[in-house]
Amino acid sequence: MVSELYKKMAEYVDSRADWMVENRRDFHKYAESGWHEVRTCSIIADFLTKLGVDELILGKDCFIAEDRMGLPDQEELDMVYERALEQGAVPEFAPFFKDGFTGVEAIIDTGKPGPVVGFRTDIDGLGVFEAQDDSHKPFREGFASVNPGEMQACGHDSHATIGMMTAETIMKYKDQLCGKFKFVFQPGEEGVRGARGMIGTGFFDDIDYMMAMHVMPLNKDFPDEDFWFQYKTCMANAKLDVYLYGKACHAAAPESGNNAMLAMAAIVQGIYGIPRASVGDARINVGQVIAGSGRNVVCDRVKMVMELRGLTAASLDYLEPYARRIIEHAAAMHGCTAEIRLMGATPAVVIDSPDFTDELVALANEIGFKALPAPEGTKPTSDDYAYMADRVIQHGGKSCYIFYRTEEAAPHHATTFDITNDKDMTKAVKIFLAAALKIVGK
Amino acid sequence: MVSELYKKMAEYVDSRADWMVENRRDFHKYAESGWHEVRTCSIIADFLTKLGVDELILGKDCFIAEDRMGLPDQEELDMVYERALEQGAVPEFAPFFKDGFTGVEAIIDTGKPGPVVGFRTDIDGLGVFEAQDDSHKPFREGFASVNPGEMQACGHDSHATIGMMTAETIMKYKDQLCGKFKFVFQPGEEGVRGARGMIGTGFFDDIDYMMAMHVMPLNKDFPDEDFWFQYKTCMANAKLDVYLYGKACHAAAPESGNNAMLAMAAIVQGIYGIPRASVGDARINVGQVIAGSGRNVVCDRVKMVMELRGLTAASLDYLEPYARRIIEHAAAMHGCTAEIRLMGATPAVVIDSPDFTDELVALANEIGFKALPAPEGTKPTSDDYAYMADRVIQHGGKSCYIFYRTEEAAPHHATTFDITNDKDMTKAVKIFLAAALKIVGK
Amino acid sequence: MVSELYKKMAEYVDSRADWMVENRRDFHKYAESGWHEVRTCSIIADFLTKLGVDELILGKDCFIAEDRMGLPDQEELDMVYERALEQGAVPEFAPFFKDGFTGVEAIIDTGKPGPVVGFRTDIDGLGVFEAQDDSHKPFREGFASVNPGEMQACGHDSHATIGMMTAETIMKYKDQLCGKFKFVFQPGEEGVRGARGMIGTGFFDDIDYMMAMHVMPLNKDFPDEDFWFQYKTCMANAKLDVYLYGKACHAAAPESGNNAMLAMAAIVQGIYGIPRASVGDARINVGQVIAGSGRNVVCDRVKMVMELRGLTAASLDYLEPYARRIIEHAAAMHGCTAEIRLMGATPAVVIDSPDFTDELVALANEIGFKALPAPEGTKPTSDDYAYMADRVIQHGGKSCYIFYRTEEAAPHHATTFDITNDKDMTKAVKIFLAAALKIVGK
Amino acid sequence: MVSELYKKMAEYVDSRADWMVENRRDFHKYAESGWHEVRTCSIIADFLTKLGVDELILGKDCFIAEDRMGLPDQEELDMVYERALEQGAVPEFAPFFKDGFTGVEAIIDTGKPGPVVGFRTDIDGLGVFEAQDDSHKPFREGFASVNPGEMQACGHDSHATIGMMTAETIMKYKDQLCGKFKFVFQPGEEGVRGARGMIGTGFFDDIDYMMAMHVMPLNKDFPDEDFWFQYKTCMANAKLDVYLYGKACHAAAPESGNNAMLAMAAIVQGIYGIPRASVGDARINVGQVIAGSGRNVVCDRVKMVMELRGLTAASLDYLEPYARRIIEHAAAMHGCTAEIRLMGATPAVVIDSPDFTDELVALANEIGFKALPAPEGTKPTSDDYAYMADRVIQHGGKSCYIFYRTEEAAPHHATTFDITNDKDMTKAVKIFLAAALKIVGK
Repeated sequence: MVSELYKKMAEYVDSRADWMVENRRDFHKYAESGWHEVRTCSIIADFLTKLGVDELILGKDCFIAEDRMGLPDQEELDMVYERALEQGAVPEFAPFFKDGFTGVEAIIDTGKPGPVVGFRTDIDGLGVFEAQDDSHKPFREGFASVNPGEMQACGHDSHATIGMMTAETIMKYKDQLCGKFKFVFQPGEEGVRGARGMIGTGFFDDIDYMMAMHVMPLNKDFPDEDFWFQYKTCMANAKLDVYLYGKACHAAAPESGNNAMLAMAAIVQGIYGIPRASVGDARINVGQVIAGSGRNVVCDRVKMVMELRGLTAASLDYLEPYARRIIEHAAAMHGCTAEIRLMGATPAVVIDSPDFTDELVALANEIGFKALPAPEGTKPTSDDYAYMADRVIQHGGKSCYIFYRTEEAAPHHATTFDITNDKDMTKAVKIFLAAALKIVGK
Repeated sequence: MVSELYKKMAEYVDSRADWMVENRRDFHKYAESGWHEVRTCSIIADFLTKLGVDELILGKDCFIAEDRMGLPDQEELDMVYERALEQGAVPEFAPFFKDGFTGVEAIIDTGKPGPVVGFRTDIDGLGVFEAQDDSHKPFREGFASVNPGEMQACGHDSHATIGMMTAETIMKYKDQLCGKFKFVFQPGEEGVRGARGMIGTGFFDDIDYMMAMHVMPLNKDFPDEDFWFQYKTCMANAKLDVYLYGKACHAAAPESGNNAMLAMAAIVQGIYGIPRASVGDARINVGQVIAGSGRNVVCDRVKMVMELRGLTAASLDYLEPYARRIIEHAAAMHGCTAEIRLMGATPAVVIDSPDFTDELVALANEIGFKALPAPEGTKPTSDDYAYMADRVIQHGGKSCYIFYRTEEAAPHHATTFDITNDKDMTKAVKIFLAAALKIVGK
Repeated sequence: MVSELYKKMAEYVDSRADWMVENRRDFHKYAESGWHEVRTCSIIADFLTKLGVDELILGKDCFIAEDRMGLPDQEELDMVYERALEQGAVPEFAPFFKDGFTGVEAIIDTGKPGPVVGFRTDIDGLGVFEAQDDSHKPFREGFASVNPGEMQACGHDSHATIGMMTAETIMKYKDQLCGKFKFVFQPGEEGVRGARGMIGTGFFDDIDYMMAMHVMPLNKDFPDEDFWFQYKTCMANAKLDVYLYGKACHAAAPESGNNAMLAMAAIVQGIYGIPRASVGDARINVGQVIAGSGRNVVCDRVKMVMELRGLTAASLDYLEPYARRIIEHAAAMHGCTAEIRLMGATPAVVIDSPDFTDELVALANEIGFKALPAPEGTKPTSDDYAYMADRVIQHGGKSCYIFYRTEEAAPHHATTFDITNDKDMTKAVKIFLAAALKIVGK
Repeated sequence: MVSELYKKMAEYVDSRADWMVENRRDFHKYAESGWHEVRTCSIIADFLTKLGVDELILGKDCFIAEDRMGLPDQEELDMVYERALEQGAVPEFAPFFKDGFTGVEAIIDTGKPGPVVGFRTDIDGLGVFEAQDDSHKPFREGFASVNPGEMQACGHDSHATIGMMTAETIMKYKDQLCGKFKFVFQPGEEGVRGARGMIGTGFFDDIDYMMAMHVMPLNKDFPDEDFWFQYKTCMANAKLDVYLYGKACHAAAPESGNNAMLAMAAIVQGIYGIPRASVGDARINVGQVIAGSGRNVVCDRVKMVMELRGLTAASLDYLEPYARRIIEHAAAMHGCTAEIRLMGATPAVVIDSPDFTDELVALANEIGFKALPAPEGTKPTSDDYAYMADRVIQHGGKSCYIFYRTEEAAPHHATTFDITNDKDMTKAVKIFLAAALKIVGK
């Protein structure tokens, strides 16, 4: 039973496909990684303003400042702000997004009673150097990233565009709708740094149905579904950077120093060695270590980049303090000190309300798409949307995480990643709209 | 130029060879290990009393009680005291040696001016189960240890006897001598536990020339010297027992426990890994670990037996606090606590005054023995005589450590150790006497 | 719908309660731990012979010899064989059980077509010293273990008796039954050593319905169910003993040795540190380490007692080879060699067929007992019955693991464990019989 | 007894002080670190050619190619070759020094019988970014390094100049001399990479007296000696770079990877933990570790930069194979492979022949300088001149290592290092000349 309103909306979306492609590629070219998204945000804000949304919440107002995680230093923030201006940030809006406040929220209020529907799309790029050769379409066609070491390598350029087009379409048919529609354009999803800072403002507390969207490649085993739905519980996640401070000295007389290299080795062995417990499965990874200076100098500085994941909240609650205890004491063993910085985190929460998700699967098929639950073994994306889903569910709402599937030129995060047929963004907009109509009874 | 007095003394010693053998074998049969030597001490005290030495210092008066190290617990001390009485301890003297005060000191004062000469002989057995079969002479001839797990496996039974006979001979010729002669019968040399407790009483402070004696086997490369002289600097030494206390629980749910096994592994790796420093060479050994109970129980109890040695005092001063810091923090890493017990120690000190030792080497050859400096590589015996030598030298005296060499049935500490020709004890007495005569100018 | 036959059988069982108590206590008094159960087996064999079961399979015929795990050494086996004879083993049967072949299997064949029903009861005691004081009923009443360090501390004495009485009752009513009944009296369940050796003979391959029984205490939260049914998947389990062989030498010159202590520490840290994988949750425990000899001797011998568990077969398949690789290379790092002995193992298998178990829960309630699925968190008993269950299920049969619940004087494995009301064994026999009747349609 | 010839030579040297300063500063400005010294060598070669030395050995002919250590990769070598040409390398000579053959040797043969005297001066800069501010004289006066990350921060620019001026003076007075004079301009002393490759050609085998020169700062405790003489035994030294190769994968499923991070930690703990042995004191330092890529990627690549030192050859002979064994097996523990590259090495050898050195100390004082043996605790400079000294001594010659002392602006290797009064180079030339005269009897 496809509603007439849906049909009109879908047609409208198709008519805007070229704009979507163009907008996506613009974001792709001026890729901004986490907390850098000044230009991106300014364009979104300008766009939403021009649409005439009922409420626009920009920058600082989207965040509890101290809940943000993994911010770059001020120098870097200043530098990218300047760059954003040079690269076409909308001057009226750019200042809202200075200093790591790169979020946009919008509300379309029909004025008629009805449910509150939320859409979350993330907007940030990744710390990847995009391939610069002709075999890579974005380069060949001139929209490869011009920002070295920043790349839209996980499709968030498409997500942002999908959010914008969803808003545009809802605005267009606003008078035929009821309820409220809330849009979140989230920074810093990579590294799960951005969401936590956004949930404390109250914005999410009245949302009845919340949806997030992510691109997902077609593959050999599952070549043709349009959508997957996750039905997932997120692994809890703590991303720690550890800095060890010892004392350097000549290696011929190490008694005058404090050896941070030994502390580091004890930490690696210690935290991997935390006994597996019955509180839930977990993962531990020390992904990176940079330690020491010269060959014949006792190492005095170490940076360790690590990640703890727990299948349950209890699992991370066991792991994280244990790891912190190990880090402190391993440092102290060798007369060093340790500084631990929490760079990102996700709670272990349900991000898909099963009944809501069941309905959306059915709906997707009903309107002519092929949709399935995500197959067993779909990479557990530790998306910090979990914070938002949890907030909504804790306040009595429901949540669903949707993958729109399309051909990709290379795996996520690869330097040659691209969305081959970027017009497929339209189907993501359509499922958002269909869901919204169903929720508000149209 | 062998003096007449020496000749008479030497003859007298030879005439007492059978008694020496008998006495040695009696001590061998009733072997008493460190701080158990109640029977041994009571017999020595009785013997010296009968000789009529001028001063006898017994038990508590030989020690600064709290400086003793590595004492057994009270229950064990009580038990061995009872055993000593049953095995023929001299009842008048035994009570002096209760509760871990198993030392005897004696002074023979000629009343004439002259130097003070000290003799140190140790008296304790080892924690070894003596071989109980007919191929082992002590067993065959009925003087193998009757105390299970205690054995005179390093020849201290002979040392004690040598000390006694030296005293007897000096008493016999006392009127032809001058100066003073001081005798120390030291407990607990094994594990270097006994000497430290004896040096604080002042007994050593006026000694001008101090000598210690140890048996040393003949060997293929050096088949025939009667004596070796050490010329040695002792390695500093700290013997630590470490107890780790965690919390046991079922291995299926280790989060309810505290894993002392992991703490132990971190300690082993940590302390071996203390960086080699420029403060002097060192040695580290974790000799024994007893950890845990059942296979599926999280380990909550660990005993570690370790030893730190430094070629210099500075080296041990670097190692020991570092090791203690590692132990504490490695325990804390896993929520465990550590208790560290100092079971024995030796300072890094010179134990041979080179000029005095040179004289004794010459003297030994002069009176017809074959004597040499100990060859390079003679096992560094970490004898806690070092405490005494250091005390004497600090107060202006000189020290020498002498090995008397004779055939041994098996290596030191072996269950089949024996001094094959135990009449060779006489030569040890003779070198003591010759040295004494030379020192006092007779 | 309780059948008449069941009622008669249940009455008969009640009439034999005193014998059951007496037999249980006899087994309790002459407790025999894993692979020692010569006396126990001989009594069971004699009992079954007297019953006139149709087939009796004894000792060697019950096993694939090389599949047995965790056998004591021959000297111990010889010693306990002699002891069994002295303690009243039935002389005609004892020889069957020499040398670690302490199993009994029996078949009652009604000669009429019908399903094959299997009963498994284990018979071994534990390595525990039973409390020897009057507050402990078995001691007070004279049936505490007379075998030091062996105790029926987990109720297997009752299991064996239940198996015997089930056989007796079935024999008594054999002519009213159809199908076949197979009984397994399994040794060495503690340490999961005995079952693996029994499954290769074909005995289990035709069993349609297999049941195992274990005692389980009443507790505060669940004070009154008669039975719990597990519905469980067993954790895969590998019990490894690791022996490290280095080379001892004096700690002052460690270059002449090979330090097995360091290898041990690297193993502990290495295997706990195996990265948590996505193949299933797991557990790792190094429960015991005995390492080294003297303080100043480089450690040359280590025994490590460890256990690896995987929630899935894949998990153990990942862990075990990884652990073995670590052990070998950690030994090699320090010039040592490692010997790894598999002391026990359980596969990760389903041990309860849900539909069969559902039926038994219903049945138990129907005949007047209170029965429930075991509550969440019932200790995962790593019972090596898993091998048998898996064998049966692989051959198309079904399996169920039943707990009969009764008051216990102390927790399983405690030195004061006892089954307070040992007449409650009758209810275990009754559920076995009721199940058998239901299965064969009577 | 200062000879007339010496006086004339000394005057000549003084007259050339300005040239020396200019030349030193030119080398300083165009600093070339180890194996980069193309420009430096070409200028030296040109200079010596113009002097008319009797034999000039350039580039490849100075080396056994495969004995060189720690070479940069070819790309780097090519790049610095181009740079050298751009920065004024002498075009006729530059090609000799391509591809890491940056050494020059020269022979002045008087044609008259007499001893063979060798002079070694090293020429390389360090991997240091020179301070670029006006408080730093070289910057202020325009001779700070123009090569980023390369700096003459240890005075080798002065050494090279000293060698050149020594040759010039000897050439000038050649007809008044006898014997032969050999000059070695050595690359890559920093990191002890260059000397080993030069000793296999036979050049050193006939040298009777060999001298090396190094600058050494005046300091508070020793404010005014002109020269120190080392009298030193060099610590044996092995500089290893270790590359670990594992397999990267997502940290959520580490079973598909091989974790090189864990291997690294085991190596750090393992090699620091090598037991201290009785073969000589040692040092171990892991100075640098670069490991891994992303936080949630299992680490597959590690670079470790380490150094092993032994006070004796036996000590390094013990340490190095032990460390290699640990590295290999620690890698294998985690399914990784290890590649070990020897980046530099020094043997444990005597570098000062005591009698020759005694003579030079006396001589220095005789000709009006203040000279002493280097005080206890002079930093053990692990100069790979040790290879040359050893070669000379093994062939019956003698060696001496001389420090010329002068004020320095900052410690060796600091970014603000400078030789404040660079005319003091003249005294280094004078002691070389005085020694040469004494050796050849003039």
